[in-house]
Amino acid sequence: MTTQPLKLSSKAEYLSFVDQFDTFMFDCDGVLWHDESLVPGAVQVLEHLRALKKKIIFVTNNATKSRKNYKKKFDRLGVQAEVDEVFGSAYASAVYISSVLQLPKDEKVYVIGQAGLEEELDEEGIQHIGGTVRGHPLSPPTILLNFKARIYFQDPADKTFDAFDITKFERDPKVAVVLAGLDTAINYTKLAKAMQYLTQNPGCRFIATNEDSTYPVGGGQFLPGAGSISAPLRYITKTDPVSIGKPNQAMMDTIKAKHHFDPKKTVMIGDRLDTDIIFGNKGGCSTLLVLTGVAKEADLRPEANPPVLPDFIVNSLGDLAVLKN
Amino acid sequence: MTTQPLKLSSKAEYLSFVDQFDTFMFDCDGVLWHDESLVPGAVQVLEHLRALKKKIIFVTNNATKSRKNYKKKFDRLGVQAEVDEVFGSAYASAVYISSVLQLPKDEKVYVIGQAGLEEELDEEGIQHIGGTVRGHPLSPPTILLNFKARIYFQDPADKTFDAFDITKFERDPKVAVVLAGLDTAINYTKLAKAMQYLTQNPGCRFIATNEDSTYPVGGGQFLPGAGSISAPLRYITKTDPVSIGKPNQAMMDTIKAKHHFDPKKTVMIGDRLDTDIIFGNKGGCSTLLVLTGVAKEADLRPEANPPVLPDFIVNSLGDLAVLKN
Repeated sequence: MTTQPLKLSSKAEYLSFVDQFDTFMFDCDGVLWHDESLVPGAVQVLEHLRALKKKIIFVTNNATKSRKNYKKKFDRLGVQAEVDEVFGSAYASAVYISSVLQLPKDEKVYVIGQAGLEEELDEEGIQHIGGTVRGHPLSPPTILLNFKARIYFQDPADKTFDAFDITKFERDPKVAVVLAGLDTAINYTKLAKAMQYLTQNPGCRFIATNEDSTYPVGGGQFLPGAGSISAPLRYITKTDPVSIGKPNQAMMDTIKAKHHFDPKKTVMIGDRLDTDIIFGNKGGCSTLLVLTGVAKEADLRPEANPPVLPDFIVNSLGDLAVLKN
Repeated sequence: MTTQPLKLSSKAEYLSFVDQFDTFMFDCDGVLWHDESLVPGAVQVLEHLRALKKKIIFVTNNATKSRKNYKKKFDRLGVQAEVDEVFGSAYASAVYISSVLQLPKDEKVYVIGQAGLEEELDEEGIQHIGGTVRGHPLSPPTILLNFKARIYFQDPADKTFDAFDITKFERDPKVAVVLAGLDTAINYTKLAKAMQYLTQNPGCRFIATNEDSTYPVGGGQFLPGAGSISAPLRYITKTDPVSIGKPNQAMMDTIKAKHHFDPKKTVMIGDRLDTDIIFGNKGGCSTLLVLTGVAKEADLRPEANPPVLPDFIVNSLGDLAVLKN
């Protein structure tokens, strides 16, 4: 049974909406902010909910930042948040590997991803290789010690390197998981190494932090998302990874392990149907779609089978700021 | 109607096989050589066919080399070949863009690929941007002129660059085609630019030199192929590119434009069912599968629907060298 979403547009409707729930889960990008710009009124709404003693949880598929680093973004934008309230797909991936897979301590994760993903693996005590390389660029004294140093323009666009030399690759037999997240330093060598692990280390698992094909950078513009980084490995192995981020319930399980909440009294607020709204619906929560991000009202397809529909719609989270007055 | 492949294993069978055809099309990697090592006897077989005045054509999905550069590989390995006999997916892609798409002279191709692809576009007089960047690494005097120069290890594995800055990207409205081939210097910026062209330049076409997910590098080892380089763009745009290389008949059309041959008197010889054998079957040619590359006899699935079966099988092309004696 599907009911049409209720579009909230009056103060009375906002009030009734807020009254129904004691836990509010928020997607961040497209809901609270775009990149480094706050959605007008969003901070006031969060302050109002805190004043009402509502539980607030932030759920993001962004896997490039650890929770601690994500907290810095909240601080920078003036949004009150505690590290324990923030759930990112990097953190959820690390928890999944340590708690669900229960990866033995002597086994390793080969990482395609950024520093935040490595930090969360470190926090969970998971051994990992690949990922970022620290210490670049080199300081001049270090260069003198390394006769292989070459000099390039610092133009990230079009660096041309030699092909991966498989004859010099030392495959680590202890790698039991390939974990792929958004990596703006993706290159052929990383893909080639990940491929060797997935195809040659028996039983090696393939995990993606999330499947978002793109992510919004504001102004209606998008860049390749984490799902596009793992796409070559899907194409090569003809296997879909276990994806941890929304809409996968691995993310919900990670939240449940830290917070007690009643799904019937919880609303998931997001800007994407294919991640946020499915995530909330699957988790038995209510859902609110905001129109400040990816999805537009025209994207709602009640005739689809199954339809992906939120319970509520509002133009902008900031519209609820009138409740403070 | 499908007949079981005939396994050739005696001199009489080889003789009868060769007698049936006047044109022999060869895949290269896995048939004539593995990387830089010749398949034993392959050169003798080619010499024998030339002595019999058979027409010889080389058809490769390798898009990293132009025909001229591919000719150098034949020379280096001591395999007689003329540039006009060599058909690569880089060349076929350039011919497709100029002859089939008839790209206007003032429109451009955004290239993800290597120098060979750019050379073939140049030969066809097609404007292109992206691709490789020439002049790296810089000579020391040039460095002094460029205050943005930074110094990195020459370690192709793990270069970490800044994320693509879309606010500084000047999208060229004249780009009407994104052409993606194997690019061992693939990076996030190239993918992000290609994505902008495919999603924002109205009518921009998406072409892949070929769809091979991997390619063999000898010793039973594989690396990511051209299809895995375009996989992120497929995933982002939810669109499959027009793929030019085998098994697509765009490659066959390119050969037909240069050589007159009767498909009934032609055999396509290759090591892959999903490219070479489908390519030959679709083109109305006979097909010979060699077992020195990707496909093994156990991969033949006569019960599949439709089945992909060669007309003939031989353990190695080199086995036919006994015909010279």
